[in-house]
Amino acid sequence: MKKIIQAVKGTRDFYPAEKAVITFLYQTIREVSESFGYQEYDGPFLESIDLYAAKSGEELVKEQSFVFPDKSGNLIALRPELTPSLVRMIAQKQRQLHFPLRWWSFGPFWRYESPQKGRGREFFQWNADLIGAASPEADAELAALLASLFRKLGLGPDQVQVYVNNRRLMEEELRVMGIPDGLHEIVFKIIDRRDKLADQDWQAYALDLGLDGKQFSAVQGLLEDRELWKKSPELPRFFEAVDALGAADYVAYAPRIIRGLDYYTGTVFEAQAVSSTVRRSVAGGGRYDNLMADVGGDPLPGVGFAMGDMVLSVILKELDLLPPDRDASPARVMVTVFSEDTLLASYQLAAELRAAGLDVYSYPTPEKLGKQFKHADRVGARLALVQGPDEIKAQAVAIKDLASGEQKTYPRSEAAGAIRELLDKPPAA
Amino acid sequence: MKKIIQAVKGTRDFYPAEKAVITFLYQTIREVSESFGYQEYDGPFLESIDLYAAKSGEELVKEQSFVFPDKSGNLIALRPELTPSLVRMIAQKQRQLHFPLRWWSFGPFWRYESPQKGRGREFFQWNADLIGAASPEADAELAALLASLFRKLGLGPDQVQVYVNNRRLMEEELRVMGIPDGLHEIVFKIIDRRDKLADQDWQAYALDLGLDGKQFSAVQGLLEDRELWKKSPELPRFFEAVDALGAADYVAYAPRIIRGLDYYTGTVFEAQAVSSTVRRSVAGGGRYDNLMADVGGDPLPGVGFAMGDMVLSVILKELDLLPPDRDASPARVMVTVFSEDTLLASYQLAAELRAAGLDVYSYPTPEKLGKQFKHADRVGARLALVQGPDEIKAQAVAIKDLASGEQKTYPRSEAAGAIRELLDKPPAA
Repeated sequence: MKKIIQAVKGTRDFYPAEKAVITFLYQTIREVSESFGYQEYDGPFLESIDLYAAKSGEELVKEQSFVFPDKSGNLIALRPELTPSLVRMIAQKQRQLHFPLRWWSFGPFWRYESPQKGRGREFFQWNADLIGAASPEADAELAALLASLFRKLGLGPDQVQVYVNNRRLMEEELRVMGIPDGLHEIVFKIIDRRDKLADQDWQAYALDLGLDGKQFSAVQGLLEDRELWKKSPELPRFFEAVDALGAADYVAYAPRIIRGLDYYTGTVFEAQAVSSTVRRSVAGGGRYDNLMADVGGDPLPGVGFAMGDMVLSVILKELDLLPPDRDASPARVMVTVFSEDTLLASYQLAAELRAAGLDVYSYPTPEKLGKQFKHADRVGARLALVQGPDEIKAQAVAIKDLASGEQKTYPRSEAAGAIRELLDKPPAA
Repeated sequence: MKKIIQAVKGTRDFYPAEKAVITFLYQTIREVSESFGYQEYDGPFLESIDLYAAKSGEELVKEQSFVFPDKSGNLIALRPELTPSLVRMIAQKQRQLHFPLRWWSFGPFWRYESPQKGRGREFFQWNADLIGAASPEADAELAALLASLFRKLGLGPDQVQVYVNNRRLMEEELRVMGIPDGLHEIVFKIIDRRDKLADQDWQAYALDLGLDGKQFSAVQGLLEDRELWKKSPELPRFFEAVDALGAADYVAYAPRIIRGLDYYTGTVFEAQAVSSTVRRSVAGGGRYDNLMADVGGDPLPGVGFAMGDMVLSVILKELDLLPPDRDASPARVMVTVFSEDTLLASYQLAAELRAAGLDVYSYPTPEKLGKQFKHADRVGARLALVQGPDEIKAQAVAIKDLASGEQKTYPRSEAAGAIRELLDKPPAA
């Protein structure tokens, strides 16, 4: 036997059971996004590298993106994130769009990273953004939207939390501590690595990047201060609004949250599993008030977040919160084929039932009925229909309940109604 | 003002009105696919170039695909089609899967072509395949599935047709005409160009590829023979089954249909608009019985098709068959914010109504009510809710019907019910 050609490292094959997870997430995300009045949109999957160059942060663009020259030599990136496309699209139609504007999206993204549990090179991401409103209450809506998805998925506040901080607050604190403005970006980078490194390694990293021992201790102290948010002019209003939106149980302050992307200007947040085998963040976001002007549009404030499918799916699987029967055919009715002679009659019956609004799987060729029943059971059908020469002569259909094994014959004109009734009945224990 | 960074040529920005078209197609495709019992799946978006090298046809792989080396130097392609991924996935799990197997998919694809109306470099495609059944009736099911989508979309058989031919029949006829087997692939290439070239250019192309004048005339004659299908052992059974499946009005024989992909072995078909400003095919497919063995699996027959979103969308737009209000917010209710003091009460009201199952858009900040009403109208909301200090004191909500201008105050506990009732009422003319 020849060797089967391998899939590309870090990509996933979505067999029906795996695709069902993506579709379940997409549909739940749609419901939650629409309940807040967000409109669905999407950007292209390919973008010019220039779009990311300035603001996404060097690591994301140069090290973690798939970039290649097209036939004209222009550098194209497989999008590693959506915010720059969103901002470009809004800047392009700034005069026609009505602000405040709420948009959401769910689509594929690519990052050239080492694949591991909960991380791949090709993944899906939910994005939600509110553009044209600059208040802490607008920030709170995004945190509440994210919390609403968790609640809808069955994840409780003891299982996942949205941790919040504010970059302006942190900058102010660094200034008070005497750390010069020129070092702030480096300190943010250090803070962003806090959760990813062991204590020793983290300290070494900080000193390596240029903090002295005193500055390091001050930063370390800052990250322990759980009351720091009270000094922010924004965060108390943020938490009050989160409470009004009914999401207070999911949202908490955490001074170590800073987020890796360079474009955030104010409140930032990150969702994390409280206990799971994957420790990476579930979602992250924040306020970006300068990005629109940076890509060439008129200044316009924005806040948003992104949530990947992979970490969330691991958590939902661990907690048994994914829908059951993910491998089953959507059709719960299978029409069997009795013989070569009755094949077309079976096709006709299937078409008739579909026209009546039923989802019907039709066995394509004549085979032993036992084999066909077994197949129906394996693909998750509940009922198997038989139409042999006797049934055809009598204009009837035999319907077999595969759960109970019971079989009964109905006039063909009543078949659709009988099927609906049988499908509504719970299967016998 | 700085210049806004441009989108990549041949890609599309999906603003809400454009994304609504994709979502409408995806949802309609889901309904139709599920009505035939097909299970949703997907392949990766990146595949090794080797997967396509042998069988997709040289033009598609070498000239029309986005191909780039990854950091290890392996050549990666942005998938130009799905069938090779499908076949690879099935070959990998051939012992665990239950055949016959019906799978469908809707996702993004890329081709490096010159963008024009109905054609881009980044597009979506519906794929449906039936694997493990080798009969003409199985072929007929795929044609009927495609026709069912057209019917569901409101496209009549006078607007779109599925044209069918059979490669084995054509090979047999070429043999009878004395055209040697070694020339068949070239003749197929010539036939495939028939619709794309003017008569003169087509003849020149045929002679250029090596046909002599007599052979050219014979091929030309063959393409005029609308009764040719009767000589096929498969096509009469195919058309009978299409009829049994209720799709005869959408399916017709056409000897010029051959399809460009190299892997087809039997029946091939192509959907075309009967009259439209775009003349390219809407969908294409056929039987491929050798592909599984070619990628390293055990031999297994297959039949399937692919349909892009772009040509179909042009036709649906021309015929005004796209859903209305594609630009509107999904929320038909907007909660206004009366003042800074009542902001949180408005947020609370919105959260309460969402918890009651309503989709609610909440204005994020206090503004003049007139401006907020105007915004509600622009984003497509039907009702605007007002909760000023008086309403808060009285535990009430004022509900304004933006269509009629009528406003009425309800006890807050009855707001959700009142909103449902108002939304059910047709707007005053």
